[in-house]
Amino acid sequence: MAIIVTSKAKLSRHAQRSRITRAQFDRIVARGLPLAPYLGLTLQSVGAGKAVARLAGRPELLRPGGTIAGPALMALADFTLYAVVLSVIGPVEGAVTTSLTMNFLRRSAPGMVIAEGRMIKCGKRLAYGEVTLYSKSDADPVAHATATYSVPPSPGS
Amino acid sequence: MAIIVTSKAKLSRHAQRSRITRAQFDRIVARGLPLAPYLGLTLQSVGAGKAVARLAGRPELLRPGGTIAGPALMALADFTLYAVVLSVIGPVEGAVTTSLTMNFLRRSAPGMVIAEGRMIKCGKRLAYGEVTLYSKSDADPVAHATATYSVPPSPGS
Amino acid sequence: MAIIVTSKAKLSRHAQRSRITRAQFDRIVARGLPLAPYLGLTLQSVGAGKAVARLAGRPELLRPGGTIAGPALMALADFTLYAVVLSVIGPVEGAVTTSLTMNFLRRSAPGMVIAEGRMIKCGKRLAYGEVTLYSKSDADPVAHATATYSVPPSPGS
Amino acid sequence: MAIIVTSKAKLSRHAQRSRITRAQFDRIVARGLPLAPYLGLTLQSVGAGKAVARLAGRPELLRPGGTIAGPALMALADFTLYAVVLSVIGPVEGAVTTSLTMNFLRRSAPGMVIAEGRMIKCGKRLAYGEVTLYSKSDADPVAHATATYSVPPSPGS
Repeated sequence: MAIIVTSKAKLSRHAQRSRITRAQFDRIVARGLPLAPYLGLTLQSVGAGKAVARLAGRPELLRPGGTIAGPALMALADFTLYAVVLSVIGPVEGAVTTSLTMNFLRRSAPGMVIAEGRMIKCGKRLAYGEVTLYSKSDADPVAHATATYSVPPSPGS
Repeated sequence: MAIIVTSKAKLSRHAQRSRITRAQFDRIVARGLPLAPYLGLTLQSVGAGKAVARLAGRPELLRPGGTIAGPALMALADFTLYAVVLSVIGPVEGAVTTSLTMNFLRRSAPGMVIAEGRMIKCGKRLAYGEVTLYSKSDADPVAHATATYSVPPSPGS
Repeated sequence: MAIIVTSKAKLSRHAQRSRITRAQFDRIVARGLPLAPYLGLTLQSVGAGKAVARLAGRPELLRPGGTIAGPALMALADFTLYAVVLSVIGPVEGAVTTSLTMNFLRRSAPGMVIAEGRMIKCGKRLAYGEVTLYSKSDADPVAHATATYSVPPSPGS
Repeated sequence: MAIIVTSKAKLSRHAQRSRITRAQFDRIVARGLPLAPYLGLTLQSVGAGKAVARLAGRPELLRPGGTIAGPALMALADFTLYAVVLSVIGPVEGAVTTSLTMNFLRRSAPGMVIAEGRMIKCGKRLAYGEVTLYSKSDADPVAHATATYSVPPSPGS
């Protein structure tokens, strides 16, 4: 199982502990991301180089047929990876998304969507991670995204 | 100027006229995309294989520093290309985004964002297009996206 | 460790065994992909929904500075995921790449590059997977790609 | 025709003339990209923020069914956009691809493939462009890519 062993190895290269707490992240969101509460985005947990977040799946986000609107899922993916990035670089301002590729894999069921994100590479200028989205009732993912974030220069570097 | 000549040639391969009007598109949005009015998305014009839409850029979409939140721009890109797809296949239900790649090119200024979308290829099962986003005050684009849409089978085919 | 548990769960949803052997894959390559031997691409192992392949990293693929040319790495990513797809759908002809997003994460060292691919979702018409590339001497990935493949209709379906 | 007018406006923002000639680009390729002559890649023309290149489409690049192997088309896309980037920043060393998203739109016919690339945004650190690929015999594109390049710091900046 080279894939899983390698992933463990890589995770261990990040800091042992997250450099941001859930409470700190919640404050950053409350201060600067009003879109998050509107859509019903919340952070569930954050670790070193990983995070789990969810989208409440409110009725106003449904499209005809009962599937959740794509932009709401893209917002969830971006929100989750933002927490992943801050778990590695800390609660600094100025990290912004530079690109995001989203693949919609199946129609999401109505209701909550869970996103599991992880860092793949955090360099000095760019951080790159992936996130997988699941409908609560199903083990098959509904979507998968990769994204790159611009990392602000760290003080003193 | 081979690039522009080729684009003209390609556009001429689509139907001469849009298969959807702005009023028809507005009704589809009013019926099934409540996220659009919340974000302030409106279609400005639609032609055969192309569309222009805008995001009002409301204060609640701003991030610290005055730039518009990335997910709102991704929603605008998806909204614009959805109109582009319907301009070619008509007002049928069931066209859904299968993938979208967004590149953020510069921080958007506060205020209105304009998106210009065009079809690159419309096949029987998949449609593919691109969209460029501009802040109203600047000629340099703030973002660019490409996306693929699944096209529902046409009746009788 | 929800991420890893989920991955295990998902893998178990594919067939327990690969539907193609390494020898079968090698024959498909020998018959139809002459670019693979030129570049020095070989399959190392294949399982159900996963594969490991490598690029020999010949001197003629190096760019100034000693890094391996990007297109050779993209070819390795595509080659690996092609094996992943055939491990799930079997040695049928007609599976083709419909899109591939490659992220170059660091300059690769000269020498062999290893790619670990896995299926994320295999539907009736489209298969979607990811692949991570490593220089042999380093635990940090040099590149990461996601790609979608068109799956030919299965006989009798 | 807002789309085409805007494109003209944007092109005019780049330097009026290409900062690299075809002969200069050919020398860079001869010195450092041996993969290009193997695949049969040549630059046809280069202007300020745009370039046209071609892939000879040799028999050894064909896949069963007579279509050109995807990695050869990705190499053509990358090659073309590399010329586009150098047309804006000049013949400096160190510009490298950081990401590339390729969409395969139809099976390419055997024979020459033409690629038309253009710059969308050239910033201080990142350049972003798009490229469209055509089989010589057909007006419909066979593939489309977008890519980001890391731009080396300019001397004195």
